[in-house]
Amino acid sequence: MRYLIKFSYDGSNFFGYQKQLDKRTIQGEIENVLKMISNEDVHVSSSGRTDALVHAINQFAHFDLNLNISSDNLQKALNSLLPNDIYIKEIRTVSSDFHARFCVKEKEYIYKINVGEYDPFMRNYIYQYNKPLDLEKMRLAIQFFKGKHNFKSFTKTNPDITDYDREIYDVDIERDNDILVIRFKGNGFLRYMVRNMVGTLISVGEGKTSPSEIKQIFEFEDRTKAKKTAPANGLYLNNVYYE
Amino acid sequence: MRYLIKFSYDGSNFFGYQKQLDKRTIQGEIENVLKMISNEDVHVSSSGRTDALVHAINQFAHFDLNLNISSDNLQKALNSLLPNDIYIKEIRTVSSDFHARFCVKEKEYIYKINVGEYDPFMRNYIYQYNKPLDLEKMRLAIQFFKGKHNFKSFTKTNPDITDYDREIYDVDIERDNDILVIRFKGNGFLRYMVRNMVGTLISVGEGKTSPSEIKQIFEFEDRTKAKKTAPANGLYLNNVYYE
Repeated sequence: MRYLIKFSYDGSNFFGYQKQLDKRTIQGEIENVLKMISNEDVHVSSSGRTDALVHAINQFAHFDLNLNISSDNLQKALNSLLPNDIYIKEIRTVSSDFHARFCVKEKEYIYKINVGEYDPFMRNYIYQYNKPLDLEKMRLAIQFFKGKHNFKSFTKTNPDITDYDREIYDVDIERDNDILVIRFKGNGFLRYMVRNMVGTLISVGEGKTSPSEIKQIFEFEDRTKAKKTAPANGLYLNNVYYE
Repeated sequence: MRYLIKFSYDGSNFFGYQKQLDKRTIQGEIENVLKMISNEDVHVSSSGRTDALVHAINQFAHFDLNLNISSDNLQKALNSLLPNDIYIKEIRTVSSDFHARFCVKEKEYIYKINVGEYDPFMRNYIYQYNKPLDLEKMRLAIQFFKGKHNFKSFTKTNPDITDYDREIYDVDIERDNDILVIRFKGNGFLRYMVRNMVGTLISVGEGKTSPSEIKQIFEFEDRTKAKKTAPANGLYLNNVYYE
């Protein structure tokens, strides 16, 4: 039986999603618990990796399990055995041709920036920028990210990647008191892509980069032209949409 | 020169406020940094202790320092040297007869309960009760805490304490979606007193204790009559008021 899980995790104490030897990872923890329950090695396939310290509000993954257990009871068993920084929100069975990565239609990330005073409670959950940013300029700048682009300037070059084209459906910035929340929706995101776009938006908000320079940065297709990568702790995988 | 500091801390990774040998404490961290700055042993006196895992939004403490430094620069120096789960919000000089504990006029604590779904991001910051509670009954019950009482039934017995009388000026419960926030204002609070009142309020919310039983619990002057102590991670010292 193939199961699809919807889950959230606080990425603060993980070396990222993907399993690594002797390191605490989200995939590793879930696979450990599935082995406890089933006595078998189970491979968990997520919608995509998240890097160390990055969080997920709604992440999705599938796995195959030969066990006579209801989805409800499987959810209870997983949550009772998983560490308290991972939580399974939903489990349902899916057809055997469903794949949590290949069937993704749209992904949504959010990035949080504190432009007010330092908040010790939020140190792992928000980028503590702690200075004002020019929101109007940032709102002009986000327009240049929308649409289909070659994102080579906004990702880590990787010889395995042949296609750097991605489409951003929407970007918006909301302000809630001192917290900026930047939301990106798109058909897919390359490694560090959101954090590199945010780093460039921050440079725009600082007045160091003009909004229209983003157009030129895209044209260079060169990572050194974009600005600093924003820290991991402000980034959340917010949702994944399937066909 | 005597300084008064207003500061906040995330209590998750501390063994409480009070200095202990070989344990990470808030007082210990602040005194360490003051020693780095001044090359002297400095004693920091807070408005009162907080237990392990308890947080502070606005805690206050005073210390004496013989150093030719402005409050602003002292604040910058402290914040740059302190760990990122303690933050000094304000520093000002006070007269030498000011005492952060003895001059307290009023203290305010809040306690947070999640009556909705488990939230991994809030695991250190809220009591994850994760079931509904009868808010109406709890609101009737809080009335019985208001006023002057002998709080022996709601604290840990301590041979050093001769006076268990405290006055609660106000208690209220706000609900923000699935989060209950219970606020207590009073002239002083004994050890575990807020957490024991909250534990009893939860028992009322579960329908196991009637609101008016609180009156009887007070009369017994016996800790075993009150209900379970609520967990530390939902408790915040929210403010301290001075003359």
